[in-house]
Amino acid sequence: MKFSIERAALLKAVGQAQSVVERRNTIPILANILVEAEGDQVRFKATDLDIEVIDSAPAQVERAGGTTVSAQTLHEIVRALPDGALVAIEEDQAQGRINITAGRSRFQLQTLPKEDFPVMASSDYAANFSCPAPVLRRLFDKSRFAISTEETRYYLNGVYLHVAEGEGGRVLRAVATDGHRLARVDADLPEGADDMPGVIVPRKTVGELRKLVDDDEAQIAVSVSETKIRFATPEITLTSKVIDGTFPDYARVIPQANPRTMEVDASDFAAAVRRVAIVSSERSRAVKLSLDEDRLILSVNAPDSGTAEEELAVAYGDEKLEIGFNAKYLEEIAAQVDRENAVFRFNNAGDPTLMQEGGDASAIYVVMPMRV
Amino acid sequence: MKFSIERAALLKAVGQAQSVVERRNTIPILANILVEAEGDQVRFKATDLDIEVIDSAPAQVERAGGTTVSAQTLHEIVRALPDGALVAIEEDQAQGRINITAGRSRFQLQTLPKEDFPVMASSDYAANFSCPAPVLRRLFDKSRFAISTEETRYYLNGVYLHVAEGEGGRVLRAVATDGHRLARVDADLPEGADDMPGVIVPRKTVGELRKLVDDDEAQIAVSVSETKIRFATPEITLTSKVIDGTFPDYARVIPQANPRTMEVDASDFAAAVRRVAIVSSERSRAVKLSLDEDRLILSVNAPDSGTAEEELAVAYGDEKLEIGFNAKYLEEIAAQVDRENAVFRFNNAGDPTLMQEGGDASAIYVVMPMRV
Repeated sequence: MKFSIERAALLKAVGQAQSVVERRNTIPILANILVEAEGDQVRFKATDLDIEVIDSAPAQVERAGGTTVSAQTLHEIVRALPDGALVAIEEDQAQGRINITAGRSRFQLQTLPKEDFPVMASSDYAANFSCPAPVLRRLFDKSRFAISTEETRYYLNGVYLHVAEGEGGRVLRAVATDGHRLARVDADLPEGADDMPGVIVPRKTVGELRKLVDDDEAQIAVSVSETKIRFATPEITLTSKVIDGTFPDYARVIPQANPRTMEVDASDFAAAVRRVAIVSSERSRAVKLSLDEDRLILSVNAPDSGTAEEELAVAYGDEKLEIGFNAKYLEEIAAQVDRENAVFRFNNAGDPTLMQEGGDASAIYVVMPMRV
Repeated sequence: MKFSIERAALLKAVGQAQSVVERRNTIPILANILVEAEGDQVRFKATDLDIEVIDSAPAQVERAGGTTVSAQTLHEIVRALPDGALVAIEEDQAQGRINITAGRSRFQLQTLPKEDFPVMASSDYAANFSCPAPVLRRLFDKSRFAISTEETRYYLNGVYLHVAEGEGGRVLRAVATDGHRLARVDADLPEGADDMPGVIVPRKTVGELRKLVDDDEAQIAVSVSETKIRFATPEITLTSKVIDGTFPDYARVIPQANPRTMEVDASDFAAAVRRVAIVSSERSRAVKLSLDEDRLILSVNAPDSGTAEEELAVAYGDEKLEIGFNAKYLEEIAAQVDRENAVFRFNNAGDPTLMQEGGDASAIYVVMPMRV
């Protein structure tokens, strides 16, 4: 294998692929990245056995071939090379090394044979469809905060992506919950997604996916089977196992008829929650909402340190209500609101509360109250 | 106590003072900040028993007085208040609380009596002088990287600030060393500093001092006794105990007649060191410098991972030399160079090497070689 490549293209491809590599590995080859040169392209492949990322970049290939080297070391070297450098990479099979040369810099890195690099079993995808990057971004960005971190409830450690019956017909839906709060985000069902099996996309995959969906113009090819999900652009392919479990019946948790509506400026609300939460003790972090006609008082009473109170003008016409929430949950939910106003629907102090963005019901959030 | 104050002035004063407060305290009042209002000023005082910072800000004082509250909570509240807010602070002595009000935000924080706040014993300062902020900044910024972190050699855990005999007369000198490298930085002796006792300024004090010396126009009033050092601007006073120990005779470590001179572009050199160090194993991090006529080769040979080599054009006219250094030490020293060129003076592979910035001998660095 022998090729030369622009430093910027190399950095982008290696950077995107290597982030999937775990820092600590008991299997040495999992610390490596597979480099394969053919035609006018070089492909970089990295895996943690659950996720596989393949990234390709244009290169001048003199001799096709492939090998594996330390992903972290290669990435650090490329990052440290000067902007605009042309990087030549050549395999020295006899020595089990590759030579990396750029200007007056020369590196030799030990290789492991490409035959030892793990191959992810291919899958028969039940559905293949195309989805604009901003749509996928919204589905995952607005739901991921609610992913559970409890390892025992492993089936909550991801975003449940599935086809559901929305108000205006079938939708592509992302749901995440940790038992205390829930996010449900809908998008128009892409053509070809009808037969998609519902899958739980693991937290790490959701994070890695962020690299593919940053470009507003990109179309992402999505393929889904019972066991895997694949996202692809012309440059990057991300294949991930999905969580082998059953996502709970979340619909039961979503209150259907909470009668009391409060409308509040979302950023004012988030700032007020952040401020009153400062005095709350680390453990409980309870914020009390006291609602009266067109007036909301947020308060915290922490015996050790003090009290805090904020008053906000809101639109509220129902009877008085006092209800408590975990401050962090309230802040995170308020942070999801892209529009000016957040609309809360309460039942009473013991029941789950619903929140949505203005009049848009395509993303809704549920949060459980806590005693205050 | 009752006063009102602009949020920006309050944030600056509290922010500067509270950074000296340790996050974990066994003595509760050490987590607090002393707030004292009098005349048209409020003073904020914080201490860790070794360092005391007093910060003052203009305020509309309605009722003079003072009390103490949690430094961290007060700081977080002020930071979270909206820009431009007017903050009213009033002590409620009967309840042992202060009320903080800004717009529709209200906080009550528990207080501890100001009488319990530790007072730092005053000192008879042997020398009082004034020094421009950029001069002090240079003295400490260029030497602090060499401060030792070994707690057993506590007398190396700071910068030795003293009066010394320089080439062109007496100078104010800062020296730091950890036994592997040494920095010696000189400045013109300020008027009134002649009788200054040599003091070891602790690492934390050097860090806190950064806040006073950022302003290029500021003049810092410095007072030094055998046990304390004080830095003051019209707004901030930082008083610190100095390390009770004897700084070693550093002059013996500085090579006087290293015959072999190499001149190299400082940023090229630092970048090359950074690159070759990538392949070195964490523990040894040894970089070999191979010098030949006007040519420097930097190399690393790490059996586990690979090799790296960089070639640099340098000015060097002496015989061939091979010498090894810890990569981190070389990088940190190269990073001190503000001018274009770094000038190294070598003796041989086993002896300390000297580095200075171009032709300027007012800051010199010594680094011990290591076997490669």
